Amino acid sequence: MNADPDCIFCRIVAGEIPSFKLLENDRVLSFMDINPANEGHCLVIPKTHVPNLFEADDESLAAVATACRRVADAVRRTLDPPGISIAQANGPAAGQSVLHLHFHVIPRRADDDLLFNWELQPGDLDAIGRLAERIRANLE
Amino acid sequence: MNADPDCIFCRIVAGEIPSFKLLENDRVLSFMDINPANEGHCLVIPKTHVPNLFEADDESLAAVATACRRVADAVRRTLDPPGISIAQANGPAAGQSVLHLHFHVIPRRADDDLLFNWELQPGDLDAIGRLAERIRANLE
Repeated sequence: MNADPDCIFCRIVAGEIPSFKLLENDRVLSFMDINPANEGHCLVIPKTHVPNLFEADDESLAAVATACRRVADAVRRTLDPPGISIAQANGPAAGQSVLHLHFHVIPRRADDDLLFNWELQPGDLDAIGRLAERIRANLE
Repeated sequence: MNADPDCIFCRIVAGEIPSFKLLENDRVLSFMDINPANEGHCLVIPKTHVPNLFEADDESLAAVATACRRVADAVRRTLDPPGISIAQANGPAAGQSVLHLHFHVIPRRADDDLLFNWELQPGDLDAIGRLAERIRANLE
């Protein structure tokens, strides 16, 4: 298990920093976010230190995805929010504050001030099609 | 493979509606969002019709998570954005407009107007701890 001694989430995994744990198995830890965007805000992380989605192995991702479903479902049955957002940021420009891969599970209300929602505006289909070709060429 | 004839994403999977495909395998399809929040906005969906995260099986989730990583990495190498957000909405209150599970892959700039980012404000630790107990009790 890869760990970074300076990473706050690695220290939570190691038990050096306390957390309100929800779920733990060989690969994954889920715990409450102590700076909640809304009541019931939780995090799901791989135990091994990877900074972002790009560095994650398939087995960790599968375990994290299943844990997100289980935790989101438990949050749903606990708080019955009208919506739940899953969010994961790669890079500070995307809002990533801790550089250890983490998925947010955030209960939502239609009138909350979390503007995850954007207005749908049609794009330029020719430009989108050309971009799709470039992205496909970069798939690994 | 479960399909809903009225679901626009099921019709994209079936080839009844055209799309700019990025990646396709037995379980997953990825294609460009034609209402992009930012240039390079893509979607990753399970081919089988499930309305949201709660209904997804582990195998589909694992395949979707791996595809998100591959597509996000290809977007990164294509556009080199300073950040990439992954977002998934459950319920209209969370901004879900198509009721077929989908993950957004969205290139980000620090100055874009997508307010995925929220100000970190400390929560009430006692209340968070009590809520954690309730959520744990609802884990399945």
